[in-house]
Amino acid sequence: MHFKNILWENDKVIILDQRCLPEKEVYHTYQSAEEIARSIRDMEIRGAPAIGIAGAYGMALAAQNYPGNSFQEFCETLDQAVKILAASRPTAVNLKWSLARIQRIYHSSQGQDISVIQKKILEEAHQILSEDKDLCEKIGRIGASELESGVNVLTYCNTGALATGGWGTALAVFYYAVADKKKIHVYVPETRPYLQGARLTSWELDKNKIPHTLITDNMCAFLMKKKEIHSVWVGADRIVANGDVANKVGTYALALLAKYHQIPFYVAAPYSTIDMEISSGQEIPIEERPALEMKSIQGKMIAPEETPVWNPAFDITPHDLITAIVTEKGFAYPSFYQSLKELYRV
Amino acid sequence: MHFKNILWENDKVIILDQRCLPEKEVYHTYQSAEEIARSIRDMEIRGAPAIGIAGAYGMALAAQNYPGNSFQEFCETLDQAVKILAASRPTAVNLKWSLARIQRIYHSSQGQDISVIQKKILEEAHQILSEDKDLCEKIGRIGASELESGVNVLTYCNTGALATGGWGTALAVFYYAVADKKKIHVYVPETRPYLQGARLTSWELDKNKIPHTLITDNMCAFLMKKKEIHSVWVGADRIVANGDVANKVGTYALALLAKYHQIPFYVAAPYSTIDMEISSGQEIPIEERPALEMKSIQGKMIAPEETPVWNPAFDITPHDLITAIVTEKGFAYPSFYQSLKELYRV
Repeated sequence: MHFKNILWENDKVIILDQRCLPEKEVYHTYQSAEEIARSIRDMEIRGAPAIGIAGAYGMALAAQNYPGNSFQEFCETLDQAVKILAASRPTAVNLKWSLARIQRIYHSSQGQDISVIQKKILEEAHQILSEDKDLCEKIGRIGASELESGVNVLTYCNTGALATGGWGTALAVFYYAVADKKKIHVYVPETRPYLQGARLTSWELDKNKIPHTLITDNMCAFLMKKKEIHSVWVGADRIVANGDVANKVGTYALALLAKYHQIPFYVAAPYSTIDMEISSGQEIPIEERPALEMKSIQGKMIAPEETPVWNPAFDITPHDLITAIVTEKGFAYPSFYQSLKELYRV
Repeated sequence: MHFKNILWENDKVIILDQRCLPEKEVYHTYQSAEEIARSIRDMEIRGAPAIGIAGAYGMALAAQNYPGNSFQEFCETLDQAVKILAASRPTAVNLKWSLARIQRIYHSSQGQDISVIQKKILEEAHQILSEDKDLCEKIGRIGASELESGVNVLTYCNTGALATGGWGTALAVFYYAVADKKKIHVYVPETRPYLQGARLTSWELDKNKIPHTLITDNMCAFLMKKKEIHSVWVGADRIVANGDVANKVGTYALALLAKYHQIPFYVAAPYSTIDMEISSGQEIPIEERPALEMKSIQGKMIAPEETPVWNPAFDITPHDLITAIVTEKGFAYPSFYQSLKELYRV
């Protein structure tokens, strides 16, 4: 890997500003939970696992910044930081999951020195990052077993090293297939409005010398008809108990088009993306982003100022359109509720 | 209407440069068929009926520019102009149709003064424009009969006054519905890579005060699930004998998504778009456009320089996904071969 999307260095958090890619590699240094929350909200860092990691480091900053000695005040300060960070993006569950992990650390540390708890929180954040790296590797290796050499695959948005603490989720499948000397060709829809496919996935695949072709999102159906596509691989922002998946807007369309063209449709995600507390996708909150993020591209307006927009950042793919969910524990198949329960014995 | 997309004035052709919209209304003046061909190829003017009209006026310029007195030489010069104009865009059949109309004029005029033939050619070009205006009105009125007040509709690309010699094809349906005091709300996918929806359709609807909402192309499926969409209305670049339709890339996906969500899918086009000489959509040539038209937006690069692209400008929607074709003669229904033949008695 030629870059780090997030890094803890000298008691500060360094974040690669993904909004500037592929043009420039710009890094920002942050020293508070509020700054991290803003960075997540503004999509400097994105990708469900990556914002989980960013949230944990945001908590490490909040803990480090606490100057006092009161355990109760420390907890109150940190609970406040949890609220601010959790509100930064509502759809992906990994953020809530990592914040809950940090919360468990300090809530269970009554009686210990603040400095000790601060250290434990930072260690937990490091642990979340390091675990995610392992999860990516496992998902990548397991998913890659489905791919034979010579196939064309289609992905969506960015689910690679930029989106996680390791090589990615869906993109890791491609990275490990290539590491196994399999020849694959990746089709990359640009993923409007934020262009994660065009700006980030193309950039990653180019850096890693994996053959790929960029298309616009509205070409996916024609691509499936004209080129032989072996399978579609996407990530997830939340997978709920029945197997419904919240992911980048456009995923639902892609799953429908894959079904019609009889192309297997895989969702790749670690356990931190699975939310068994919600029974169906309809209950997942869908974030709507500002109009300007759709109407202007790299600072250039592409529609009249007056034009109203609808800008949901995610959509819900119903479980019946999904062939399998690839996790670090193996594949979950329909019916997903049963299959996920068996994988995780919950 | 507050603008003209193409105009014959003082023996010259004036074209509104649609690439500059919605930011600026820039007009260019042209004096040769070669300039018109370049203008069509560069998409200053676009929309199947509009490029048919532009082709006819290109021929009027070629005729006017002929300085000699030899009928044979005149015909050779004009046949050469036909070739240049026909090659400017291969998918829409209206261009070939209007060039053939002009060709019939001069090939059947042997023995007449060149100046007389020149005048007849210009009159034929004016006639093509004026007929298209009438066709738009008929299509608009017929299509509008399908819409009740209060419905949400979805369109694609730009099929309005900018794309035709009148109020448009699919968009004319909305214009005439509104003229009939029906309340409608139009959802407008931006239509990548050229953004005809965001830049042109939003601009037209805004100018004509028709309520509308812009979305990105990848939101159409989620839109169909979340909002009550009454019907989808698109134009066409070529409709062949079995009812298969070539139209802006993304139309095929939209038709599939409409079918899945049980939303009627209408194609609106005049007889000049119908090509009974081709039996199925697979035979229609699909133009591929330059990579830079996808990778740069308003001069801003959105993907790495090195990234390869696939950039087909059109796709084919199979007839079995189409509810009805709206023509100036009425609705054609499946099976379209029979229905179109009956409408046109061919």
